[in-house]
Amino acid sequence: MSDRRIPPSEPAPEALGRVKVLVDAALRAAVNDLDDPHMRRVASYQMGWSGADGRPSQVGGKAIRPTLAVLSAEAVGGRSEDGVPGAVAVELVHNFSLLHDDVMDRDVERRHRPTGWVVFGEAQAILAGNAMLTAAIEVLVGAGAAGQRCLTCLLTAIQQLISGQSQDLYLEGRTGVELEDVLRMEAGKTAALLSCSASIGAIAAGASVETVEGLAAFGHEVGIAFQLVDDILGMVGDPAVTGKSSSSDVRAGKASAPIVAALGARSDASRRLARLFADGPPATDEDVALATKLIGEAGGLDWAAREADARRARALERLAGLALPDRDAVADLAAVADYIINRGRLPNMRTS
Amino acid sequence: MSDRRIPPSEPAPEALGRVKVLVDAALRAAVNDLDDPHMRRVASYQMGWSGADGRPSQVGGKAIRPTLAVLSAEAVGGRSEDGVPGAVAVELVHNFSLLHDDVMDRDVERRHRPTGWVVFGEAQAILAGNAMLTAAIEVLVGAGAAGQRCLTCLLTAIQQLISGQSQDLYLEGRTGVELEDVLRMEAGKTAALLSCSASIGAIAAGASVETVEGLAAFGHEVGIAFQLVDDILGMVGDPAVTGKSSSSDVRAGKASAPIVAALGARSDASRRLARLFADGPPATDEDVALATKLIGEAGGLDWAAREADARRARALERLAGLALPDRDAVADLAAVADYIINRGRLPNMRTS
Repeated sequence: MSDRRIPPSEPAPEALGRVKVLVDAALRAAVNDLDDPHMRRVASYQMGWSGADGRPSQVGGKAIRPTLAVLSAEAVGGRSEDGVPGAVAVELVHNFSLLHDDVMDRDVERRHRPTGWVVFGEAQAILAGNAMLTAAIEVLVGAGAAGQRCLTCLLTAIQQLISGQSQDLYLEGRTGVELEDVLRMEAGKTAALLSCSASIGAIAAGASVETVEGLAAFGHEVGIAFQLVDDILGMVGDPAVTGKSSSSDVRAGKASAPIVAALGARSDASRRLARLFADGPPATDEDVALATKLIGEAGGLDWAAREADARRARALERLAGLALPDRDAVADLAAVADYIINRGRLPNMRTS
Repeated sequence: MSDRRIPPSEPAPEALGRVKVLVDAALRAAVNDLDDPHMRRVASYQMGWSGADGRPSQVGGKAIRPTLAVLSAEAVGGRSEDGVPGAVAVELVHNFSLLHDDVMDRDVERRHRPTGWVVFGEAQAILAGNAMLTAAIEVLVGAGAAGQRCLTCLLTAIQQLISGQSQDLYLEGRTGVELEDVLRMEAGKTAALLSCSASIGAIAAGASVETVEGLAAFGHEVGIAFQLVDDILGMVGDPAVTGKSSSSDVRAGKASAPIVAALGARSDASRRLARLFADGPPATDEDVALATKLIGEAGGLDWAAREADARRARALERLAGLALPDRDAVADLAAVADYIINRGRLPNMRTS
């Protein structure tokens, strides 16, 4: 990892706070417009606006996707407001997927609080996710011709998100998984919505197909880089920072990129790792520690870190190659990309 | 029930078979277009096109909602084809809701087969439902200006469907439920999508707002009548015909219309019923039989039957009041309405 060029953690870019304020009212209106009080309550909890008791709270996300959406409108010369319906839509879709994924993965904690299904039950969590997904589309349909132009971008991302989660569940515990399968799964699970976020504002602002595709490619590469770093941290991150056990991916038999890369390395460590995994994911602390060590020795973590670097570089290259009129917004897009990829997590990485 | 005017069961209207053939290719294309092979497989099973092993089968539904959609296009003078995207969309939404509701209600059998989550697991059933919901919207977005005009109709129905299911779960086992609450829940759970189905083809065909609203009101009343009959059959129907135990609603403490109407009757039977329900839904066969008898004596079943009759009459009145150019399609709409409400189930009713 000595050659890695990803810089250490940095303060959150100013754009995140600015966009969070800009989209807040529209985002809350979309949730408040839900017919059913139970749906509003679960959605509001999921968004971090209220606690389990319904009282106001403030533990919301970082507004990464809304920020990309608004910046993409600005970057192509549109108004910030042009990006707001898309920003609201991608944030609702992101939270729909978190709410549903927690049900499917039986995750009990997110953002240091019990997950939605733990608080409200599985049925209400499923329903509220559906309501948020539908509300996201309603926001675009209600935003005139500019909003309707964004529908295909959002719907395609939703289908890819669903496919990615399906593939993730399918690959879990499976042997003979190829890196290609993992990267395709990660493209759906993580990159698709970031790609849509980084271009949806530009679509609303009426940018050319080439510009929209360039921004989408930028968001896609950022998404893959982010997920690869996430995979590394799922193995060697500091649980106090990442919020999840550093052994959970190994224990669950997740087909994460470092594991699959290590298994494919054709080295001694790689063969020992394959034998360890042959009877299913390691269960004892000892075996988990050994597996993690072998993944490192077989070069799995280094592969993922190098690939993340390459993806980050490609993302910035795509961005730099676009003739975008608003250079401040472009600089913000680059800063947000680095923030997404690093998210203050890398100082805690120990890959070798 | 001596005064009921709902006719006995009848053969399926010819329109159902005709529309099923008309929309089949587009419906299959929408499912085949899903990215992920697992999603396609679950969706195809849910649609009745394949078995648990993936082999072709043919146990699909009756195409009631697609038929209403196509007939609504024809009735206003449009081409049958104008109704197809809407027909595909409402059928996908219907099946999304069945797939998800079975997960939430832990129902293990539908159409004499194991439900989707029983065969493919809960996560894949949730994901495939999401994919079908999204595909429904994609079909409309992909159908040009006419399709996009239909988006609000469909999205509103989806939100009402979600609210109705949420209220249904919320009301379960609760005391002090008002008839108004039950009818609102049933409006969401059942009437909303039938109302959308009965007007979405007319929207695509460019009908006036008044005509669209009239057709939507027709579909709404049909939906409430259908649900009320369903409630009656959930208590006294022949399980061999209805496909569910005639005591399941009583045992589950469902806030169904006959039960709530009986509890509100202020008669001796009504007070005895309230005492029986005071400690939760009856559990023993003896108590279930007594509750069912008291619901009949307190007039709950008669109320529901009379209300279903009134709703059916109002539906046909709304339809007759519209100046629709294609009288054959109007006659078909009326025939399909009666078929929906009766569905060959009424001869098995024993309400007194």
